[in-house]
Amino acid sequence: MTAARVAVLGAGSWGTAFALVLADAGSSVALWARRPALAAKLRECAENPEYLPGIPLPSAISATADPGEALDRAEYVVLAVPAQQLRANLASWSGHIPPAAVLVSLAKGIELSTCLRMSEVVVEAAGVEQDRVAVVSGPNLAREVAARQPAASVVACRDSGVAERLQKVCHSTAFRPYTNTDVVGCELGGATKNVIALAVGMAVGLGFGDNARASVITRGLAETTRLGVALGADPYTFAGLAGLGDLVATCSSPLSRNRTFGEKLGQGLTVAEIAASSRQVAEGVKSCAAILDLARRHEVEMPIVEHVTSVVRGELTPAEMLSGLVSRSAKPERHGW
Amino acid sequence: MTAARVAVLGAGSWGTAFALVLADAGSSVALWARRPALAAKLRECAENPEYLPGIPLPSAISATADPGEALDRAEYVVLAVPAQQLRANLASWSGHIPPAAVLVSLAKGIELSTCLRMSEVVVEAAGVEQDRVAVVSGPNLAREVAARQPAASVVACRDSGVAERLQKVCHSTAFRPYTNTDVVGCELGGATKNVIALAVGMAVGLGFGDNARASVITRGLAETTRLGVALGADPYTFAGLAGLGDLVATCSSPLSRNRTFGEKLGQGLTVAEIAASSRQVAEGVKSCAAILDLARRHEVEMPIVEHVTSVVRGELTPAEMLSGLVSRSAKPERHGW
Repeated sequence: MTAARVAVLGAGSWGTAFALVLADAGSSVALWARRPALAAKLRECAENPEYLPGIPLPSAISATADPGEALDRAEYVVLAVPAQQLRANLASWSGHIPPAAVLVSLAKGIELSTCLRMSEVVVEAAGVEQDRVAVVSGPNLAREVAARQPAASVVACRDSGVAERLQKVCHSTAFRPYTNTDVVGCELGGATKNVIALAVGMAVGLGFGDNARASVITRGLAETTRLGVALGADPYTFAGLAGLGDLVATCSSPLSRNRTFGEKLGQGLTVAEIAASSRQVAEGVKSCAAILDLARRHEVEMPIVEHVTSVVRGELTPAEMLSGLVSRSAKPERHGW
Repeated sequence: MTAARVAVLGAGSWGTAFALVLADAGSSVALWARRPALAAKLRECAENPEYLPGIPLPSAISATADPGEALDRAEYVVLAVPAQQLRANLASWSGHIPPAAVLVSLAKGIELSTCLRMSEVVVEAAGVEQDRVAVVSGPNLAREVAARQPAASVVACRDSGVAERLQKVCHSTAFRPYTNTDVVGCELGGATKNVIALAVGMAVGLGFGDNARASVITRGLAETTRLGVALGADPYTFAGLAGLGDLVATCSSPLSRNRTFGEKLGQGLTVAEIAASSRQVAEGVKSCAAILDLARRHEVEMPIVEHVTSVVRGELTPAEMLSGLVSRSAKPERHGW
């Protein structure tokens, strides 16, 4: 347990849950909400009624809509905004970020216009060294973490000393972080699992059972690992909490936005219909094209990501997607579908 | 699709479901049931009312309680009896097994008295060469396979030519087998997943959610892989369908005996109470001690298998087991719990 001064930028469900982890581990946390009205509600109710109703926020968490106030003297700056908004947000915060602070990305996705991972966006947009940028990724459904159910995660930074310090800052009774230096692997695992979860959701929505679901998870992790290795990641990372762990939790849980989105696609709704009925983002719907683009640039075959992207674009139905995947010719296991 | 003459020895749920796969793929199948009364029921009802009620058996499947009749001119002999009974059964069948037949193990477990894998038991007890022994293992919940839901699996044999021939014999529209030459990895994946599923079931029974479950699955696969590597298996096998895939299906499904058994342990029942209320075997309850024994002989740390074995022996409660696992000190991810 290490007491630190931490700014958490983004008061959605995961930003708020991670602020609770930090507070439980002994830090004082400034939680920034984009909307002043939400910041005011957090202060008044001492909870986040929009994203984590019923979970009290302890006094170690103070809410504000002023980024300068949140970032004042912060040793760690936790970035908890949606992936596609990270760059613009960083541009507006950069004057306030303390020069020695460690920047910690919680966002899972790939930037659409550039195909960059979140830590790469941070390095570019905030103008900091890679060794000061960390990511936290793992099987961490926000509502369960906020309820202090036991959870494990990975804190990754190219500088292992930074990862170890951050590990202490977020190690609470219920939340167990492991260190890793493979930032690339952790970020790819987190981004791609959203796309695989869409495929698993579609299988569930079409009425298929646990065998089909487990097969999509397994083959999805295999293609994610192939992309990771091509990008210089350690294949073992994908067998760990930020790869397999996160993928399994996301694909199992009815709390997962991406799996739920896929399930509705499988039941016959269109992307536009589902998007219209939900406030929260299914990041996989956005990131799939960027991941496919990355895969093509590196000549990696990713049949599941490719088929999901076609469904999202309206070029295939979910049933056509699954039969397309299943009907590929039989092969030795290590050669892909 | 290849028409072959196949004996399936064992008419439980998985033996019967695999007989359906073989028949769908074009073979003629003799399905042996230990009890003459069950064999007679299979013939009369053209279904297996005890293990797969409601699923019709096609005419390509003939049922018998006579092993000599079942094994007559069989090109493939599929062994679908419980792991701990395989040796005794093989002894009684050995005079009838055609000399050129390929023996295919479906059993998932480790022999208690010897710590041998099933294919090793086959080599010893049937006196055949390793290159004629294959295993089939993957995310294959019997009821879903019998319902022709899409499923994938691994057929493994040290001789890749034998694996390819067997692949053709069991490749149907709904069942998709991949080949692998890593018999050790496939068998260990199948045996150990039953023990990990007990741990996951206990977490569920204690009221924990998807984060905890995904973490136990991830760390469980990591310790299984460590044991496999020590025994000469290919680590990639554990990331495949016979490792990760089977583990995820077993740990997700309410149809899984081992997960269900663990869930009841988590709810406070004893091993004796649960065993008394169920006819089917939870293989993990038997195999855990043999796997722990193997791990100790090879000096591999397997904390989850160790803790599960203690619960099965009544030395720890499920709650003590989980808090014991969670309270281990924080580490880099690759170094285990």
